[in-house]
Amino acid sequence: MSTDKFIKKIEKQLPGKVFTDKEDIFCYGFDASSTEGVPSAVIRPSSTTEVSEIASLAFETGTRLVPRGGGTGMTGGAVPMKNTVVLSFEGMNRIIDIDHKNMIAAVEPGVINQHLQDMLEEKNLFYPPDPASMKFCTLGGNVAENAGGPRAVKYGVTKDYVLGLETVLPDGRVLNTGGITYKGVVGYDLTRLMVGSEGTLGIITKIFLKALPLPEEIATLLCTFSVLDDAAQAISAITSSSIIPRTLEFMDHESISAVENYRTFGLPLDSEALLLIEVDGPHSVVSRDAEKIASLCSSFNGRISVADDMFSKQRLWEARRAISPALYYLKPTKINEDIVVPRGNIPGMLRSLRNISEKYGLLIASFGHAGDGNIHVNIMTDKKNKDEYQRANDALKDIFRSTLDMGGTISGEHGVGLTKKQYIGMELSETSISIMKSIKNIFDPNGILNPGKIFPDD
Amino acid sequence: MSTDKFIKKIEKQLPGKVFTDKEDIFCYGFDASSTEGVPSAVIRPSSTTEVSEIASLAFETGTRLVPRGGGTGMTGGAVPMKNTVVLSFEGMNRIIDIDHKNMIAAVEPGVINQHLQDMLEEKNLFYPPDPASMKFCTLGGNVAENAGGPRAVKYGVTKDYVLGLETVLPDGRVLNTGGITYKGVVGYDLTRLMVGSEGTLGIITKIFLKALPLPEEIATLLCTFSVLDDAAQAISAITSSSIIPRTLEFMDHESISAVENYRTFGLPLDSEALLLIEVDGPHSVVSRDAEKIASLCSSFNGRISVADDMFSKQRLWEARRAISPALYYLKPTKINEDIVVPRGNIPGMLRSLRNISEKYGLLIASFGHAGDGNIHVNIMTDKKNKDEYQRANDALKDIFRSTLDMGGTISGEHGVGLTKKQYIGMELSETSISIMKSIKNIFDPNGILNPGKIFPDD
Repeated sequence: MSTDKFIKKIEKQLPGKVFTDKEDIFCYGFDASSTEGVPSAVIRPSSTTEVSEIASLAFETGTRLVPRGGGTGMTGGAVPMKNTVVLSFEGMNRIIDIDHKNMIAAVEPGVINQHLQDMLEEKNLFYPPDPASMKFCTLGGNVAENAGGPRAVKYGVTKDYVLGLETVLPDGRVLNTGGITYKGVVGYDLTRLMVGSEGTLGIITKIFLKALPLPEEIATLLCTFSVLDDAAQAISAITSSSIIPRTLEFMDHESISAVENYRTFGLPLDSEALLLIEVDGPHSVVSRDAEKIASLCSSFNGRISVADDMFSKQRLWEARRAISPALYYLKPTKINEDIVVPRGNIPGMLRSLRNISEKYGLLIASFGHAGDGNIHVNIMTDKKNKDEYQRANDALKDIFRSTLDMGGTISGEHGVGLTKKQYIGMELSETSISIMKSIKNIFDPNGILNPGKIFPDD
Repeated sequence: MSTDKFIKKIEKQLPGKVFTDKEDIFCYGFDASSTEGVPSAVIRPSSTTEVSEIASLAFETGTRLVPRGGGTGMTGGAVPMKNTVVLSFEGMNRIIDIDHKNMIAAVEPGVINQHLQDMLEEKNLFYPPDPASMKFCTLGGNVAENAGGPRAVKYGVTKDYVLGLETVLPDGRVLNTGGITYKGVVGYDLTRLMVGSEGTLGIITKIFLKALPLPEEIATLLCTFSVLDDAAQAISAITSSSIIPRTLEFMDHESISAVENYRTFGLPLDSEALLLIEVDGPHSVVSRDAEKIASLCSSFNGRISVADDMFSKQRLWEARRAISPALYYLKPTKINEDIVVPRGNIPGMLRSLRNISEKYGLLIASFGHAGDGNIHVNIMTDKKNKDEYQRANDALKDIFRSTLDMGGTISGEHGVGLTKKQYIGMELSETSISIMKSIKNIFDPNGILNPGKIFPDD
């Protein structure tokens, strides 16, 4: 078996970096999606040279590789298919350089998002992308998935901060794209092509990221609504105003009560929805914008409370980040989607979600980045309950259809991976998909890099 | 001859939209670069359907097409090679929709950049990309070249505003990429691949652009320096400060005097350099940032003057935009480059340019977007003076080498087109170039779309 041959050889080449014992490799078979697998082996390279050696040997032996960051993905992008070898980047987690003058960070793929945030903050710099898993997810994974987060509404997503990449191609060649300048238009934008390609085009070994000056001040507002539609109207009013909030997060009643029953944060259980809103900038602007937003929310019957100390701010964000785990206390199976609609269509989308939940008699909890139209929709069910699970999957199709009808997309930041691949045909034309497959084929002619992801099985 | 057959057929299909008389097509042979050609015909389509018809017929007959916007390109991207047909978009210049609620504009490729700016401004919205040619260049051309401009230092370039595209492939198929949402990660980022591909992958027929709220206030500062290096140090000080100016434009002595001799703007002829700096935002922030920047400049011996009325602001920007035409009064031939270096290396790059100018005894005028490290370097010479022209081309190689040694790129916003294609091998690896060629081959297997651009002749 080619994979076994590969494993024996690579064990000799990289002693102590190849793991095959069940207990060592078991936990590399999961991510935050409902999918799972078991790799044939796990390799922990320490350098680009080693990654290149691994890829060359894999190319020779036709061994299939799965690059893996923190394993916090939501769609199975890092979940190994049968008979694959996982490349895990714990051993490549150095922040290589922070160039303060140029506000650029050079990092290895295994660096945890939060670690970079902290390092930069010490130097009065700021890296905006902040996925909910930021304390555990790696920057390599963030780039592979083009991760977003609450701050995306003002600051954009990962792709907006990647200036350059070093990647290893599936045949072992090292490819450098982009660089350390803010602008560059020499040839096609291969950097942007790599970002969000979910580890199917190349193995990321070095990342050059743009940083910003750290905002001077942040104001955090909690706004609760007795009526869902009022919250939806408030969101539209804010996003079409002249203020771009730093975050504009939404939680529906189901999310609020799930979190509050999971741990007591003091969220109001009598509300149909809440908004967690932050504005940042110089003091004068922050206080003015916070007032404007507060009055906008009040005009839609929102009840405002300001988190004026670090503790209460942190508590609110902990509550927000606790939603995903908390939901599992409602039902064992979570069908987790992250649809996006044009921001003005948020009210329509929330109504549509409520209708679908009633139509199928399902518990649907919605929360997320209302500010950029990105709603995390969670159908809570139980795989073992065949009938309910079937209804859940029918409801999912309805949700996607209604999302696309409103000019939206079926994934804003989680990617396609395994869980969404059978649906991309609802959004992308045959022409698009065939072009994407041809691009995949240029980078990975033998199909050995992260097989079975993104594209529907033929 | 296949092209003649194509022209005869298409004249029947699109009566009144195909031009072949020399006087009609002559001016479609130029752009703002020193390159030129003569197309076999010019077609002015009015719709996506017509563009698709043209492409299908071109595909059948093996006819080579050159998409063209305003013809203001700096590198010959829209200049027709021998035996090609130009597709010109004067007939597709509608602003289809401005969705104020979602801050999104849908436009046809022939819309002039300035027209969209004006339309949006009336609605208190803002489209940042502002190439010097904004009064004449088209948004289709901006997208094809990934155009930048002075405001890029704070607001980014064209690619940062393109949410989605409709393009016609060289075989006539219509490809829709991206959409009207702020986020989206379903499949590879074909939109970003199209942006900056210089009309070699597809023919842009519709563009969805993101807009921003219009900044409340703008302050404009002129800062002049007796010593070039002081200006360079001031640039580094500003770009590594916590302020992100709206623009940070640089002009060296040669550019200043060229402009001042061309038309009297009142620029100080005794200065070695000047900076044209703008900050924008709410009133309180603008005044504070303007003061900070003024004091930073003074600390490097800069003399500040504030343009406090619309007239003096406009005069300064007219002067800035007049540089390119003005330089032709110094010498008939302009070798126009737009290198970028990491911003901290601007002082080093300016010293290096001065050395190269002395080494080769050439007049080199430099100006541009110092804020993002993008310097427009103009070697002024005379093609007819064989010896000087040779020295100019040797100097050019030195400039590129020194740019790349400083971690820079040979083009920040002008693209490669014809004038830079023999140099891309200095910046891009063989692997990069071969991947790009394979991508070109997916979209345009017969090589009929904008032939001879970007890639060096084999």
